Amino acid sequence: MDGAGRGRNRVEPAQDPTLPLALAHFAPSYRKGPVDECGVFGIYNNTSAAHLTYLGLYALQHRGQESAGIIATDGQEMYSHRNMGLVSEVFDEAVIGDLKGRSAIGHVRYSTTGSSVLGNAQPLLVQSRRGSLAIAHNGNLVNAHELRERLEQEGAIFTTTVDTEVMAHLIARHRKAGLEEAIVHMLGEVRGAYALLFLTEDKLIGVRDPHGIRPLSLGKLNGSWVLASESCAFDTVGADYVRDVAPGEMVVISGDTVRSTQAVPSQAPQQPRLCVFEYIYFSRPDTDLQGRNVHASRKEMGRQLAREAPVAADVVIGVPDSSISAATGYAEESGIPYEMGLIKNRYIGRTFISPDQEGRRRGVRLKLNALKKVLEGKRVVLVDDSVVRGTTSRHLVNLLREAGAREVHMRISSPPYRFGCHYGIDTGDTAQLVAVGRSMEQIRDLVGADSLYYLSLEGMVKAIGTGVATGDFCHACFTGDYPEPIPEGAGKFAFEKGGS
Amino acid sequence: MDGAGRGRNRVEPAQDPTLPLALAHFAPSYRKGPVDECGVFGIYNNTSAAHLTYLGLYALQHRGQESAGIIATDGQEMYSHRNMGLVSEVFDEAVIGDLKGRSAIGHVRYSTTGSSVLGNAQPLLVQSRRGSLAIAHNGNLVNAHELRERLEQEGAIFTTTVDTEVMAHLIARHRKAGLEEAIVHMLGEVRGAYALLFLTEDKLIGVRDPHGIRPLSLGKLNGSWVLASESCAFDTVGADYVRDVAPGEMVVISGDTVRSTQAVPSQAPQQPRLCVFEYIYFSRPDTDLQGRNVHASRKEMGRQLAREAPVAADVVIGVPDSSISAATGYAEESGIPYEMGLIKNRYIGRTFISPDQEGRRRGVRLKLNALKKVLEGKRVVLVDDSVVRGTTSRHLVNLLREAGAREVHMRISSPPYRFGCHYGIDTGDTAQLVAVGRSMEQIRDLVGADSLYYLSLEGMVKAIGTGVATGDFCHACFTGDYPEPIPEGAGKFAFEKGGS
Amino acid sequence: MDGAGRGRNRVEPAQDPTLPLALAHFAPSYRKGPVDECGVFGIYNNTSAAHLTYLGLYALQHRGQESAGIIATDGQEMYSHRNMGLVSEVFDEAVIGDLKGRSAIGHVRYSTTGSSVLGNAQPLLVQSRRGSLAIAHNGNLVNAHELRERLEQEGAIFTTTVDTEVMAHLIARHRKAGLEEAIVHMLGEVRGAYALLFLTEDKLIGVRDPHGIRPLSLGKLNGSWVLASESCAFDTVGADYVRDVAPGEMVVISGDTVRSTQAVPSQAPQQPRLCVFEYIYFSRPDTDLQGRNVHASRKEMGRQLAREAPVAADVVIGVPDSSISAATGYAEESGIPYEMGLIKNRYIGRTFISPDQEGRRRGVRLKLNALKKVLEGKRVVLVDDSVVRGTTSRHLVNLLREAGAREVHMRISSPPYRFGCHYGIDTGDTAQLVAVGRSMEQIRDLVGADSLYYLSLEGMVKAIGTGVATGDFCHACFTGDYPEPIPEGAGKFAFEKGGS
Amino acid sequence: MDGAGRGRNRVEPAQDPTLPLALAHFAPSYRKGPVDECGVFGIYNNTSAAHLTYLGLYALQHRGQESAGIIATDGQEMYSHRNMGLVSEVFDEAVIGDLKGRSAIGHVRYSTTGSSVLGNAQPLLVQSRRGSLAIAHNGNLVNAHELRERLEQEGAIFTTTVDTEVMAHLIARHRKAGLEEAIVHMLGEVRGAYALLFLTEDKLIGVRDPHGIRPLSLGKLNGSWVLASESCAFDTVGADYVRDVAPGEMVVISGDTVRSTQAVPSQAPQQPRLCVFEYIYFSRPDTDLQGRNVHASRKEMGRQLAREAPVAADVVIGVPDSSISAATGYAEESGIPYEMGLIKNRYIGRTFISPDQEGRRRGVRLKLNALKKVLEGKRVVLVDDSVVRGTTSRHLVNLLREAGAREVHMRISSPPYRFGCHYGIDTGDTAQLVAVGRSMEQIRDLVGADSLYYLSLEGMVKAIGTGVATGDFCHACFTGDYPEPIPEGAGKFAFEKGGS
Repeated sequence: MDGAGRGRNRVEPAQDPTLPLALAHFAPSYRKGPVDECGVFGIYNNTSAAHLTYLGLYALQHRGQESAGIIATDGQEMYSHRNMGLVSEVFDEAVIGDLKGRSAIGHVRYSTTGSSVLGNAQPLLVQSRRGSLAIAHNGNLVNAHELRERLEQEGAIFTTTVDTEVMAHLIARHRKAGLEEAIVHMLGEVRGAYALLFLTEDKLIGVRDPHGIRPLSLGKLNGSWVLASESCAFDTVGADYVRDVAPGEMVVISGDTVRSTQAVPSQAPQQPRLCVFEYIYFSRPDTDLQGRNVHASRKEMGRQLAREAPVAADVVIGVPDSSISAATGYAEESGIPYEMGLIKNRYIGRTFISPDQEGRRRGVRLKLNALKKVLEGKRVVLVDDSVVRGTTSRHLVNLLREAGAREVHMRISSPPYRFGCHYGIDTGDTAQLVAVGRSMEQIRDLVGADSLYYLSLEGMVKAIGTGVATGDFCHACFTGDYPEPIPEGAGKFAFEKGGS
Repeated sequence: MDGAGRGRNRVEPAQDPTLPLALAHFAPSYRKGPVDECGVFGIYNNTSAAHLTYLGLYALQHRGQESAGIIATDGQEMYSHRNMGLVSEVFDEAVIGDLKGRSAIGHVRYSTTGSSVLGNAQPLLVQSRRGSLAIAHNGNLVNAHELRERLEQEGAIFTTTVDTEVMAHLIARHRKAGLEEAIVHMLGEVRGAYALLFLTEDKLIGVRDPHGIRPLSLGKLNGSWVLASESCAFDTVGADYVRDVAPGEMVVISGDTVRSTQAVPSQAPQQPRLCVFEYIYFSRPDTDLQGRNVHASRKEMGRQLAREAPVAADVVIGVPDSSISAATGYAEESGIPYEMGLIKNRYIGRTFISPDQEGRRRGVRLKLNALKKVLEGKRVVLVDDSVVRGTTSRHLVNLLREAGAREVHMRISSPPYRFGCHYGIDTGDTAQLVAVGRSMEQIRDLVGADSLYYLSLEGMVKAIGTGVATGDFCHACFTGDYPEPIPEGAGKFAFEKGGS
Repeated sequence: MDGAGRGRNRVEPAQDPTLPLALAHFAPSYRKGPVDECGVFGIYNNTSAAHLTYLGLYALQHRGQESAGIIATDGQEMYSHRNMGLVSEVFDEAVIGDLKGRSAIGHVRYSTTGSSVLGNAQPLLVQSRRGSLAIAHNGNLVNAHELRERLEQEGAIFTTTVDTEVMAHLIARHRKAGLEEAIVHMLGEVRGAYALLFLTEDKLIGVRDPHGIRPLSLGKLNGSWVLASESCAFDTVGADYVRDVAPGEMVVISGDTVRSTQAVPSQAPQQPRLCVFEYIYFSRPDTDLQGRNVHASRKEMGRQLAREAPVAADVVIGVPDSSISAATGYAEESGIPYEMGLIKNRYIGRTFISPDQEGRRRGVRLKLNALKKVLEGKRVVLVDDSVVRGTTSRHLVNLLREAGAREVHMRISSPPYRFGCHYGIDTGDTAQLVAVGRSMEQIRDLVGADSLYYLSLEGMVKAIGTGVATGDFCHACFTGDYPEPIPEGAGKFAFEKGGS
Repeated sequence: MDGAGRGRNRVEPAQDPTLPLALAHFAPSYRKGPVDECGVFGIYNNTSAAHLTYLGLYALQHRGQESAGIIATDGQEMYSHRNMGLVSEVFDEAVIGDLKGRSAIGHVRYSTTGSSVLGNAQPLLVQSRRGSLAIAHNGNLVNAHELRERLEQEGAIFTTTVDTEVMAHLIARHRKAGLEEAIVHMLGEVRGAYALLFLTEDKLIGVRDPHGIRPLSLGKLNGSWVLASESCAFDTVGADYVRDVAPGEMVVISGDTVRSTQAVPSQAPQQPRLCVFEYIYFSRPDTDLQGRNVHASRKEMGRQLAREAPVAADVVIGVPDSSISAATGYAEESGIPYEMGLIKNRYIGRTFISPDQEGRRRGVRLKLNALKKVLEGKRVVLVDDSVVRGTTSRHLVNLLREAGAREVHMRISSPPYRFGCHYGIDTGDTAQLVAVGRSMEQIRDLVGADSLYYLSLEGMVKAIGTGVATGDFCHACFTGDYPEPIPEGAGKFAFEKGGS
């Protein structure tokens, strides 16, 4: 989904040429699986609006480590600060102090490629006839390219490569009618996944796409209203979870009231078709999605995996940190003891200097170490939540064997990952996905495991909760079954990398 | 001309609260007089395009120290890097290396207020139907507010507060007709001062406003064409000066050719109505403007000043660095010896820690020291090129007296500065100008000098060169005689601070 | 053990005044319990000596996050680089490249107070008559003050406040006799805990104190010899563990040989009296100490704790990361399910901006979040490896209760911590230790738990391994039973903070 | 004088490989001629001691741009801060605030080579039996090597490579007798040039070498006493110059009193044999040395040069900034008009990226530009204060010719520079000095000038002042006539680079 677009604003990051591939694969900002692109947080009517947004972004940092931004308003002016880096790096006390006012929205963004330019950092602040508008967006539009082309034909110009700007243009086209109406108009034209926050001098608005693919929840903190990608952000700021924003719903917070309208007809009659990867990998274990705890769901996936793919073994281990939940579930269900077999170094910096051609192997060892005493002579079940290119898996299996594991049985707590995401997840080049064009046996052989099993789609869904069916999720990355048709060439659409 | 506009994207810079006023007045990025807002540089068809642009910006650094940026193209893609800071801070070798291609434009920007946000750094890179377009702008539009309002009514959105974006919108409105035609269209709508560089994947275009208020010159470096705000940049990159771009002229460099068209009818039939402050203060002494050397003109202003305002004295001194030329001219004409009476500390950093309430006085002493041996018991002529608020002058006169000067006669090599600039110069609050609402005697009294004289407008013009009349310059800051009517409320126009 | 000494070289760190206490308590470089002061790594005869030392320090980063340093030699010159910060911050490729040669030693250092000055960073490089000598030291001398006083009387001067310099002086006093003899002489005079690495142009020497309080191991990497504080560093560089350096042993690596001598008579006839806190908290779980895996020992401590202090409960949780091992042991032994009840935010930066007086509570929530779904209505066993001041414990108990825990039973997998360490651990002010002067009931009340139990000393030792007795460890922090008499006033000795 | 010593603590700085030689020659921290190594400042009994020391170092920044440091005392403790960089970079308000107390000393240091290590930054803080002692040193000992060897034989160790540490050891050897006595003892053993400041908890002491080679002056600021390398620092802090410290004098400031003793017999019966390069180049123009203003002396050197080496020419120009004084003197005496023929770019950063092999030529042009309008067709006298390797001169002559100069006559306002300095000036490799082994004609040919003359030694001394003879200065760099015999091999002595 690389930007094959015209005239991209692209500066290759000054990459450390010595950074071994394996390390890139283990870099601190790296998240082994596919990567979610953003987290959003907003608060209305709080004297510490920017401060609390800062804390909320801290809690959502796992959703994006590339850039962070906050826009606040005191009802008169909009105050903005965005920069590349972690929340802890982008903000300091003086900056937070300058972000005045009682309302604010914030954004953390992830990006894997050259498009990591500051200009694309969010929230986006645009000014048009009806005043200022700040927008924070998690998701991706599948028809952004088409819309952008039309807008350009109508004379629009773009100063960023994120599709958030496309939405801003569409809103401006109808702004005369009032902001809410203009947003509804815009939503009528865009297709895709989005959790959106809008901030004006006097309103905070939250919108979720008609399928409910990306998560967005509403919370309350004393007299303040809060919107966030994940409920863990509510816990961090001390807010109470109220409810999820519904598919196609627009929540308008203004003055003392919260109004809700169905901005676009819901396409998810039962419940949101939430991205199933939020359960598998993206969300924090302490987040509740649709009332279900993420850690609990992951653990249940591990249990289900044990039922579907039992194996005679001595010990179950998980890849830290994200697969520990599933591994403990597998252990409990199978009765095979869970053990801490891999230790993660918590101090890995952003870059790493490789002494030699052994870099890749050393990179893995620098990040993770295998516990010989735990593994020696053992038949090991290695639980991982997903496999992307297979390279890391191969190194892990090798690491375990070198530590003395007699057998290594890989168990993946999600189905084979085979299709690109069009809804805001950077899946890299799908051609490189290990599960594309390979049989299970070939994958097993490639990673070097004694056996390899993936959790079934049905099993995964069952694990998430009772009362849900596969149709209640977006699982296109496993099945290619996208909630709505993907326009011809959408993969190439993204002028940038298709996400924001 | 402060932005009273709606919804400004404003973050107060984290100012050092201890920075004494006097020091702010002497800060390194401070330029005592009114400040020019930008310098531009462009090169076409050179294998070291970004490198040479970097060198060119180095030479133009005096025109703006707030932010710097370069956009380069290899004919396929546009590569951009912009950041806050000096050229030497913004670019390093890796960054320059990433700015690939054979053409590039660059920009240095100055700003004194809270609008010093990265989002306003230039060149601006916009994308529209017909491809990418990078724009670097020195100047200011007087009808930007009006245009912006119209564009917003038509549905345009703005992501920066610089009027460059207004121009980008106007171009996009007519892009179908071809870029050059679209630029001509845009120029037909904007009014004000501008030296503009445009870069596309295959063209470099330079345009100068119909009055020729801001400078722009064309040079040649072997097979490459170069455009720059000042000729000193040509010397630095080793290019030869070819000629000034004429008022209203558009120079289109493409392939092997340079084509020239009169994009807007010239409003300066004789010669450009160049901003007279370029001669007085802004331009580097080694720059030639309209074929006249800046240092030579300044020296002649000093001579003329000596003719207009002679005084019996023992020594002539100038305020370093910008007034040295005029001071030597005064000395030569008057026969009074020129002396180095004030020594400037070359190592002043951006901030300064004041130990106590004496900060202001110490700030002056930290930056400048008076040479007692030169001044003791002497009647001193102190030549300065301009006086803004008068505070610095008062401190300087005091410094000289403490060093033993018996008499201090201030001689200013330009007329009293009384009117705001609408053409790209930040004049601050005109109400604070010392010459507004004060008689000469009151000003003299305020700065504490024994006598005070300003150079006459006619004398100044005469000094600049033969064959020129006052009508051949923009001298509105002295006379209020703007080249064209300023729209009602233009002072409030600038959504930002009116410049870019 | 705060430095009450004369004329300390003390600069208060520029602390963020907004950093709430609770956060300081949860700061990223913070390690909840007492803190180990250093890790050392050395390698001899390897073409990537500095690179591998860098990797080794990465693996030992948990032992000290304040400063890092490497000194390398090519047999002719010594090349040194030290700075404040994490390994990933202190070194980049250029720096590593400048650290030429085939041998190197490195050091990571922790410090909690104002003495965090660069001058104290290690390794120390001294030059004397017989050439250069680099020293890296983990530990603390109990008679440093006395020795320093004597040396000063003899005319010695000190440029740092670390007792490593005392050792350097003592060595220099006898250097004529040869380096090894001089080291032996020095060892005859110092008393305390130390793991020492020495590097000269042609030798790498490792020494361990006669009690074997601080750990030091020998490894082999192809033709190179390696010395490190913990065996996990061997895994990271791909070396094989050979053996622990014995109490009082000096290992001299030179040319092709490794020679071993008993530099000082061992005071630990059976086995090293290793600091028991290395098992409880300091060492990485994947490190093997004296042939016993640290994780396994901790898990066994949890089992033993379950035997000693069983409780009727629904779930066992541990404080991440260091107490997870013990918590799983407790769960396995008790049959109560282990659960992930606390989630740690992995992205906490070094500073944190508190919005208000709620800072302390928010600080805890920012760092750790409780899993409501896991805890609601449950009787919870909270396992922690140690309690220092009790503040964090109180916040944790409160966090669990707010998340719905019906009962909270604290179980500490080590005995009450009551005595200051004189062997290189920063214990802060012993008067602030929660276990000093309080009954168990008072502590329980203070932390707000329903019940509270500490593991017994005997239980702890039993958990570490068969064949060991309490006399086989230094457990003075629990018992006050120091391996050797502490000189009167040693607590005040440390000119600096007693460690290096 | 490069360190050929054993075991140097040497880390090559991460140099920009693209930095062209010519640029290194024009780098911002570069000072064209030989470089002075240090500036010192001290203040006693002032509530803003650290703040004022900071300002004083600002004024002395031209004497050293590599590192800066301040040590302050509140009578109980010593507070220290040192780092690499300019004064404005090393200190911020928080740091200054931490440097508590009413007395302080500061130091700025220059170094050109790899020995630019932080460990060598000053002031040095040592602790010995009698308490803390901070030392700031400008100068160089000629017998440091010999002393260091002796000290090492006696068991001393060294943690830096500056000879200040040698002095610290010698003082410690006799500290029992009291600090002043110990200093006198030390002074009896060292030979060379030094301006020394010592700070203890209750005293500030200043000492100057028996020849008075390096400058040191005493000033008064209300109730506070001030010591500084140059009087310009007094002006900056608002202090009054009292007198120079005499050769061999020790000034002890303590309580309310200033006591003076002849610590070592003066070797300069008439007046200090001050380094003549302080007049030529090192000191700031606004400094008074021995009651003579530096600018005035330089101007007189220019006059004398005009008398000794007149030439028929149209214009006199100087190399900015240091040669402007001499150039105006030459112009006044010769009657040939002085002109600003070279313009210096004030914004050159520390590094510079060269686009290509043309780097050297571009480097010169980036830093300096020639004013064509001033030079075209003219016979030019180019006045420079000294010539080191001749490379810059060649580039300058070429620059002038390219700007149209018809003839270029170089006039150097000092004698040919042929001998290395042993007194604290980094002269680089004397073999590279253009005047070594070349006739005047050969030098002229090498730099490409039409004529070339150096000022005579007698003429130079005459210019400095009446009543002085050549014997009243150290002019060894011109004559090889060192104030005292230089030990065999002193050039190689310096373990570091011979200076501090």
